[in-house]
Amino acid sequence: MKFDQWAVRYDIDPDHYKSRIEQLREDLLEQQFRLADSGRPVILVIAGVDGAGKGVLVHRLNEWMDPRRIETNTFWDPSDEEEERPYFWRYWRRLPARGHTGIFLGSWYRQPLQHRVDGTIDDDGLHHAARRIRSFEHQLTADGAILIKLWLHISESTQRRQLEEKAPKTQQNPRVTDNPYELRGLYQPTLEAAARLIQQTQSVECPWHVIDAEDRNSRELTAGEIILGALRARLDSKSASASLATLAAPVDYLAAVPLQKSLSASDYKTRLADNQERLQDLVWRAYRDKRSLVVAFEGWDAAGKGSAIRRVTAAIDPRLYTLVQIAAPSDEEIDYHYLWRFWRRLQRDGRATLFDRSWYGRVLVERVEGFASDAEWQRAYDEINDFERDLVEHGNIVAKFWLHISAEEQLERFQAREKEARKRYKITDEDWRNREKWPAYAAAVNQMVSMTDSKHARWHLIAGNCKRHARVRILETLCETLEKALE
Amino acid sequence: MKFDQWAVRYDIDPDHYKSRIEQLREDLLEQQFRLADSGRPVILVIAGVDGAGKGVLVHRLNEWMDPRRIETNTFWDPSDEEEERPYFWRYWRRLPARGHTGIFLGSWYRQPLQHRVDGTIDDDGLHHAARRIRSFEHQLTADGAILIKLWLHISESTQRRQLEEKAPKTQQNPRVTDNPYELRGLYQPTLEAAARLIQQTQSVECPWHVIDAEDRNSRELTAGEIILGALRARLDSKSASASLATLAAPVDYLAAVPLQKSLSASDYKTRLADNQERLQDLVWRAYRDKRSLVVAFEGWDAAGKGSAIRRVTAAIDPRLYTLVQIAAPSDEEIDYHYLWRFWRRLQRDGRATLFDRSWYGRVLVERVEGFASDAEWQRAYDEINDFERDLVEHGNIVAKFWLHISAEEQLERFQAREKEARKRYKITDEDWRNREKWPAYAAAVNQMVSMTDSKHARWHLIAGNCKRHARVRILETLCETLEKALE
Repeated sequence: MKFDQWAVRYDIDPDHYKSRIEQLREDLLEQQFRLADSGRPVILVIAGVDGAGKGVLVHRLNEWMDPRRIETNTFWDPSDEEEERPYFWRYWRRLPARGHTGIFLGSWYRQPLQHRVDGTIDDDGLHHAARRIRSFEHQLTADGAILIKLWLHISESTQRRQLEEKAPKTQQNPRVTDNPYELRGLYQPTLEAAARLIQQTQSVECPWHVIDAEDRNSRELTAGEIILGALRARLDSKSASASLATLAAPVDYLAAVPLQKSLSASDYKTRLADNQERLQDLVWRAYRDKRSLVVAFEGWDAAGKGSAIRRVTAAIDPRLYTLVQIAAPSDEEIDYHYLWRFWRRLQRDGRATLFDRSWYGRVLVERVEGFASDAEWQRAYDEINDFERDLVEHGNIVAKFWLHISAEEQLERFQAREKEARKRYKITDEDWRNREKWPAYAAAVNQMVSMTDSKHARWHLIAGNCKRHARVRILETLCETLEKALE
Repeated sequence: MKFDQWAVRYDIDPDHYKSRIEQLREDLLEQQFRLADSGRPVILVIAGVDGAGKGVLVHRLNEWMDPRRIETNTFWDPSDEEEERPYFWRYWRRLPARGHTGIFLGSWYRQPLQHRVDGTIDDDGLHHAARRIRSFEHQLTADGAILIKLWLHISESTQRRQLEEKAPKTQQNPRVTDNPYELRGLYQPTLEAAARLIQQTQSVECPWHVIDAEDRNSRELTAGEIILGALRARLDSKSASASLATLAAPVDYLAAVPLQKSLSASDYKTRLADNQERLQDLVWRAYRDKRSLVVAFEGWDAAGKGSAIRRVTAAIDPRLYTLVQIAAPSDEEIDYHYLWRFWRRLQRDGRATLFDRSWYGRVLVERVEGFASDAEWQRAYDEINDFERDLVEHGNIVAKFWLHISAEEQLERFQAREKEARKRYKITDEDWRNREKWPAYAAAVNQMVSMTDSKHARWHLIAGNCKRHARVRILETLCETLEKALE
């Protein structure tokens, strides 16, 4: 039995229990104050079979520490708003802000574990779930989060005693079924699946700690000491800067964009109308199929992104789309992982979410302007790939556009805008400054395409020197993407 | 037929239609740019029977205006997360930020109207709903929102033609039932109820405009002109400062608090433990009854609010409560009505939400420090009463505490804290400055209690010179409140 070998237990001299707890509490508070200044969140996963004392432990931790910076998150059945979004959405929305601690009961481990036990998934499915969890957790810790995972282990007979005899009915968590699946003869299969899942999600930065939870005092002390040790170790060390990935020398994708392409005014009119009608029907079809469309629009300044997006929104029933403008993050958003602000904007199943600038800012403006460190933007490629895969696995349809123009065309448009008083947006100094960094941006775009183009989330580089051509191509590409996905 | 008399229609010379629309569009864009700078949101309600062309109109408005600052909100069936919160929560969460426009289809008018038609409520019920809507809308406009309400009116035969003949199936909103209740012979009753509701929610600041919607071009032009006129009128006028309410001379509630009350250490221990156990059971009972507890904690600096709250949280299962710290609003929150940041923190049915400082900041610190204008904090009493009534009508249990100490006691505690190195919070200069404003705060507290104490949301002024007494009294009061409500 693996858990019996794994389980840790701090022995206590009963005479010194009280003073030891007193000291532990003092030390935990100390670390909590350091945490507040560290700019790092703590994510504490508490797992174990029913009756292992998870709720009581959480209660105790809230007593020991300052509850003002702890949020306890319990995940019972998902709400319909949660079910209609990618799996990790319900966890992203509950992540603690920097300096805060989030306790997760019934975490992202619960569903794969249950599904393995009831046979919904096999070992391969469990393996797949573990891979997704690893990438989710890795994203969090790479961003500075301190992740601590505890499994409270009790024997089958202890569980039976806890659930059948001891718990007073009035104080019992009413969602704990009177007959949890471990009690239906599935204790062993549960632990076998859990052991597998723990092994597959064990790592230096996201370690599991299995605690012998037979005795309450010992269990709580052990958990407290483990948490204290983890906090100390992580707060003492600077967030280890990830070693830089070896980056593939990028192809010059931009050079290959056929910028000479153009479209006459009369062809434009017909093809625009045709594709708008086509898109309108397709988006309703996606709605009926409960498939969401997620589109990222990126491009050079003055490439015509705004007016191209207008041709797309004009085609979609306003009840079905949300247009999200991405600029600098708000002060609330700054307190989370940079992907948090995109997760929070995802709509329910069947809707279209159009991002005017997107999560690719991390590897474009944030990279070029130095707002993100080298380690941050380099690991962002994988994070973005994981994010988009989460969307696609849930059934979302993802498309990404880079609207490309030549440097000469941009200059002409800047100059035209400066002359034209009636244009409501002026060219700012910042636009001119960005223009000076054209080569750095071009390199970033090429690498972005190279690292994040994938079969399920394609990059479309659109020739934009002729606006008419660009608008129609974007509409056509969206229609093709939807048709293929809805087949 | 009232609607036929009410309905407005702008006649159009077909030869000039195109140029007039061109001009309208230009003008609307102009107002939208002014709006962005005005710091005011626009709330556009679009109502009418099925088939009146609401969706098409919204589509057109998105084409005419800059869609980047328009959010369309469609309300079909409420999600379970919405059903488990007070009625207006689903609308609060979709309100547009300052400078933005929110279009509301299937707005807060839909449910009372449907319920009146299907007989769930009678005329009194409709009247009650109208009163709640008036106070909700008044809150928004008093805060600067520009509220425009359009009713698209069509005849019964036009509706039948629209729904049965014309709509191509693929582009049809699939949630529109094939047989809406107006088609089930209820067209007349629907319009009668709507006429009543419109009359009861008509006001200068929240006007209804009934539009003759028989003809599409005319309908869209009329709607556009009405919106343009409303925007111009409201953006030209400064937000009219509400005339100051006559405020009752307040009673000195604080003077009546029995500050001499105290509790011995041994009595404290017993009564604390007893009431914590009692509270624990009551909160689980409230959970099972799907009744939420909402508690506001206010009090003087150093009154012991934090440590009293810890005695409360220690009694409640961490899975059932959320502790919300209220400090200065974030930059996202600043962009909404000041109550928005409290609405967004409300938990689902059956949970406890504890606010450490609360919406009463508006009539306390914001009043005394001048962060809110006189008009703002004076109208806040009614806004707060409405807010708490919304909570109570949904079934929430509301309790409010002011933790009171004498000025002398505060001085002693400040001095003790300054001496005691181990206290992790220091006394700041701000604390001393606040202390100098004691009389102004005392006046604000007295008036707050006078204006917002009500049978369904009681103020409890707790004598806090003896911390033990205060902690036990808060626990006891919470228990009594819960017991009474759960009877």
